[in-house]
Amino acid sequence: MKLYDNKHAPNPRRVRIFLAEKGIDIPTVQVNIMEKECQTPAFTARNVMQRLPVLEFEDGTCLSESVAICRYFEVLHPEPPLMGRGAREMAEVEMWNRRMELDLFWRVTFAFRHTNPAMAELQVPQVPAWGKANGDYLEHALTWLDGELAERAFIAGESFTIADITAICAVGFMRVIGRKIGDDTPNLQRWHEAMAARPSFTA
Amino acid sequence: MKLYDNKHAPNPRRVRIFLAEKGIDIPTVQVNIMEKECQTPAFTARNVMQRLPVLEFEDGTCLSESVAICRYFEVLHPEPPLMGRGAREMAEVEMWNRRMELDLFWRVTFAFRHTNPAMAELQVPQVPAWGKANGDYLEHALTWLDGELAERAFIAGESFTIADITAICAVGFMRVIGRKIGDDTPNLQRWHEAMAARPSFTA
Repeated sequence: MKLYDNKHAPNPRRVRIFLAEKGIDIPTVQVNIMEKECQTPAFTARNVMQRLPVLEFEDGTCLSESVAICRYFEVLHPEPPLMGRGAREMAEVEMWNRRMELDLFWRVTFAFRHTNPAMAELQVPQVPAWGKANGDYLEHALTWLDGELAERAFIAGESFTIADITAICAVGFMRVIGRKIGDDTPNLQRWHEAMAARPSFTA
Repeated sequence: MKLYDNKHAPNPRRVRIFLAEKGIDIPTVQVNIMEKECQTPAFTARNVMQRLPVLEFEDGTCLSESVAICRYFEVLHPEPPLMGRGAREMAEVEMWNRRMELDLFWRVTFAFRHTNPAMAELQVPQVPAWGKANGDYLEHALTWLDGELAERAFIAGESFTIADITAICAVGFMRVIGRKIGDDTPNLQRWHEAMAARPSFTA
């Protein structure tokens, strides 16, 4: 089993942190996104959507989409639970993970892909106004999330989950649009310091 | 328990079809999106993201995000399984559901929200070039999906899952951008006829 990975991209990092939190070690193969290695015939056979990460099984079959790969390991290795336990908790984690995707992670990604000249060949067409709209929304999202974190330690409640992982990777990827968490969002800052102290943060 | 719903919107329909396939009947409350009923203080207290659908429990607490609501019922009512059974199958369904979201459902939604004048007050800012880019991508996505369906009956494999539901709702919502599945995608057409024959289709 191996994980097709890229050390600079935010989605593969989600899986790496998830595996580190589970204590699972899987060999990785680095794929150069900027050199269009996701678009080769060999890679396309692994994931028709030409995206990272991809998990390749011993028999050569493959699984893609970050959360799908996480789901696979969550079922096989339920401890510690990172996607909730029981119907209501699993649903709450799913809700928070999706909020972190739709309202944070994708915002950063769109802002980057649609405004950075280096992405012009990979993001066709680039729509700068869409990039700007997402960058603007992000300010609102960070303020909102700061308020949410005023009274709890983790994104989805009182324990670390995949929703924290998605948020960690979104916040980390803010570097590519020149933003970082500031003093104006102290709860988010406190949360982020706690996340950065976890060994999985550097996975 | 009740479901805050809108009969014209594609996301609440995902939950209604899911519940119909499970044989679960829950009272619904219609919320008028165009009249900004999702933005009232009362609704915002139910879902801070001001989106539909929302499931309200007997104690007044709420759960939002379509797939999170589906997850709740999948765990409590596992038969028939709509999110896969076992690690690999659950992961495959998750992968296909996400592909249907990212590469089909969101494309239709973005094309609609960013090009239709009626959405100008709700989608701020509207970015017409982003709407057009998504409409263009959709052509490619439908052709690709037609090829995927050449050799299997359902989106994620040999049984009906939440990935079919997401695709049904995406295809149905194509009406708002004046598109429908044509003779040039016969496998998709065959799949869609089979979906439309299920009682849940009109949920």
